[in-house]
Amino acid sequence: MAKLFDTTLRDGEQTPGVSLTPKEKLWIARKVDELGVDVIEAGSAITSKGEREGIRKIADEGLEAEICSYTRVLKSDVDAAHECGVESIHLVAPVSELHLKKKLKKNKSEILDSLDEVIPYAKDYGLNVELGAEDASRADQDFVEKIFNRGASLGADRVCYCDTVGVLNPEKTEQNISKLTENIDIPLSIHCHDDFGFAVSNSINALLSGAEQVHVTVNGLGERAGNASLEEVVISGKELYDIGFNANPELLYETSRLVSRLTGVSVSENKAIVGENAFTHESGIHAHGVLNDSATYEPISPDEVGRERKFTLGKHTGRASVKAILKEMGVEADDEQLKEIVSRVKEIGDKGKKVTTADLQTIVETVLKVKKEARAKLEELTVVSGNKVTPTASIKLDYKDQEEITQSGTGTGPVDASIKAVKKAISEIAEIQLEDYKVESITGGTEALVDVSVKLSRKGKIVSARGARTDIIMASVEAMLEGVNKLLMEEENNEGS
Amino acid sequence: MAKLFDTTLRDGEQTPGVSLTPKEKLWIARKVDELGVDVIEAGSAITSKGEREGIRKIADEGLEAEICSYTRVLKSDVDAAHECGVESIHLVAPVSELHLKKKLKKNKSEILDSLDEVIPYAKDYGLNVELGAEDASRADQDFVEKIFNRGASLGADRVCYCDTVGVLNPEKTEQNISKLTENIDIPLSIHCHDDFGFAVSNSINALLSGAEQVHVTVNGLGERAGNASLEEVVISGKELYDIGFNANPELLYETSRLVSRLTGVSVSENKAIVGENAFTHESGIHAHGVLNDSATYEPISPDEVGRERKFTLGKHTGRASVKAILKEMGVEADDEQLKEIVSRVKEIGDKGKKVTTADLQTIVETVLKVKKEARAKLEELTVVSGNKVTPTASIKLDYKDQEEITQSGTGTGPVDASIKAVKKAISEIAEIQLEDYKVESITGGTEALVDVSVKLSRKGKIVSARGARTDIIMASVEAMLEGVNKLLMEEENNEGS
Repeated sequence: MAKLFDTTLRDGEQTPGVSLTPKEKLWIARKVDELGVDVIEAGSAITSKGEREGIRKIADEGLEAEICSYTRVLKSDVDAAHECGVESIHLVAPVSELHLKKKLKKNKSEILDSLDEVIPYAKDYGLNVELGAEDASRADQDFVEKIFNRGASLGADRVCYCDTVGVLNPEKTEQNISKLTENIDIPLSIHCHDDFGFAVSNSINALLSGAEQVHVTVNGLGERAGNASLEEVVISGKELYDIGFNANPELLYETSRLVSRLTGVSVSENKAIVGENAFTHESGIHAHGVLNDSATYEPISPDEVGRERKFTLGKHTGRASVKAILKEMGVEADDEQLKEIVSRVKEIGDKGKKVTTADLQTIVETVLKVKKEARAKLEELTVVSGNKVTPTASIKLDYKDQEEITQSGTGTGPVDASIKAVKKAISEIAEIQLEDYKVESITGGTEALVDVSVKLSRKGKIVSARGARTDIIMASVEAMLEGVNKLLMEEENNEGS
Repeated sequence: MAKLFDTTLRDGEQTPGVSLTPKEKLWIARKVDELGVDVIEAGSAITSKGEREGIRKIADEGLEAEICSYTRVLKSDVDAAHECGVESIHLVAPVSELHLKKKLKKNKSEILDSLDEVIPYAKDYGLNVELGAEDASRADQDFVEKIFNRGASLGADRVCYCDTVGVLNPEKTEQNISKLTENIDIPLSIHCHDDFGFAVSNSINALLSGAEQVHVTVNGLGERAGNASLEEVVISGKELYDIGFNANPELLYETSRLVSRLTGVSVSENKAIVGENAFTHESGIHAHGVLNDSATYEPISPDEVGRERKFTLGKHTGRASVKAILKEMGVEADDEQLKEIVSRVKEIGDKGKKVTTADLQTIVETVLKVKKEARAKLEELTVVSGNKVTPTASIKLDYKDQEEITQSGTGTGPVDASIKAVKKAISEIAEIQLEDYKVESITGGTEALVDVSVKLSRKGKIVSARGARTDIIMASVEAMLEGVNKLLMEEENNEGS
């Protein structure tokens, strides 16, 4: 069983612009522990007061994983780590000529000597020591071997070969790691960066060449192009090689989502395994194949990594996927109608537009001539705001053409005030909660289309709705009302059936 | 010289949710042609009317690259491609048992027979034919060889081995491609998907094993986890192997930006080479190293791929990077002041917040006690909007504590109206243009912080400014005024010096 050393909270947090509070660090640590990583590098204790607080919280949590702090080869760093109550340190020494000369301004023998002093010091604290060789891939390989062996003789428990700027390729990895693992008596880790897109491939190759542990981060976070991604290493190890890890793949997706949410670093749609599109199918041919047998265009089933399959629509859309989506929507269409729906979908796609579920709904309603009448309609909305005005909104709704509901609200801004007014008005009709409110980033000036999406719930049932306008307030209110009407109509349908 | 087959406009456009207009397809084709790819797969002619229009536009443009259309093994597809005026077709035949049985419902000999009919038909049109074997990596390898040789004997010009669901690993790639290239007389391409994160590694491995061409997409776009990314293949080929391409690396970044903008698929911050962070440094140790010698923490120089180095601030920030940024800002601080600035930066980082340039400016102004007085200050803003009201805003500015400027504006929404009013008021002071207005996506409800950034210009000088409030209108106006004041103060400083 190969081991996973999760460095999301150290290397991952060094992603430019990312800062986690101690509480957030603890959430992530709990989640990767539940997932089953073997070691959690919780941070670098010397960094700051807040960082130490975070590491201490994690060390105190009693997790399964070994909790580790990054340290330089300095007693003060080891002290700081020890004070946080960690079990191990990742003690990193630069080893390339470049790093020694330009950064540390020390020579090779000075580095070796510093180990003599610091490793026994750390061992005296009872710490496990993983001795990392920074920039090892650009260093004299004999010196790397020498420093690792010196570390082992001083009591280090593991060593780590760091490809600090991601210049390894699989061939070089095999060559260097095989030789090292032959000549060193303690377990070897590898730490890969993705500057050329080889981090995962190199990590796997190291394991095939005798390494026993890989450093990974959730979503491949980390400085510059990031580190080897946890999810890709785990799944490629399992699916393409016979490399097992003590990690539950079914938790990969929710772990990825948590880290993305807390760090604010979004995962690209086309990222392997955890990207939005990894199990989404649009094109006609593909979707058709997947509907016949999901293996046709899926290397693994989405549920293996805790996900679901999705279909989207566009100009490549064929009948098969439209049919599948209509089925999900509970709509039946004959062949003629289906053909017409597909053709209208392609028409939107040709104009360079995404076909949203709302678009499909409109198309279906038009083609099938089932125009659903909204229950709650906006009659009037007025909003006042400014720097010396409490943002205030008034709203008048027409409910089922029978009742007029007027309400008002104030808020932290004009959108908030409007939504508060809408919520109050709706509360007179039904108990509906706003679960989520989101605006896609607005680019292209103040006249650009604003895309608002909301999630509303009623008695456990959740619906999504969307509004798109150049006016953010109108888009927000439109999205709210669309969702409310969906929930109201659904209820009526259920009552009727 | 290895060849690049760019499939951004076919496989890339099959990314769920992506639809390009004919005009947008042409822009991208021009750009990848300028970059220097050898073949451009412009689309799949049979897909739709708009798709054919796009392919025709590209074929008519007289680009250097060979223009290609995807086709199935059907005369009607070949007709459609021919009518668009392309030079070549990528003629794709499924070859795995799974694809044959579940998708095509044909057996192996039927597939071979269909080639007998379609390849000569295409050759009669004078088309170059690249025969692709779909799902080749999961097929009987003897059958793949057989179909490739049948294609060659029928006049196909190249063959393509498609790893349709991304299940190859470098070892398998080497094994399969070496054998095929030995036994087939025409050039072989490889087409890799990134479902396990191996697309680039496998593509390079195929070239090392005798393949002469690789299929790539800009930003690794494509169905599910996407295809091998153009930029990673080009740069890793150049830097880690001795594989040359006829492509200018300096255009990689702007090509990536163009495709991201037109497709709406953002590139993750930690994507190799083209991600926002690929050449950004935050942590103290790293930034320090880079400032001494950029090679310390950079595998290649950012200008090699048409980019610039960036530094950001956070809890890992050290003195070296703060000093570098202060220098850029034209601020001088002594050691004591520098220490204080660094400590305040870390404090913000510990709270889990990003440290923006505006934050740094405030810190610097406080520590150095140079409080700059804003020239134009907001006195009063009032905005009215709604569904039956023309969004209207009035604004009162105080200019240099001497003059009061009152203006009003209407717009497509309350934000637009406010900005129009601000613009009018400012036009009385100086000629300033709003070049860019952007709002980061808003998540976490209607009370969440809204982050507005603007770019303003005056006489060729451009400044960025930012406003963050829970009120989108106030955030927008704040950002505008911050930018205006920056430009006004800059002018005064220049006049003074």
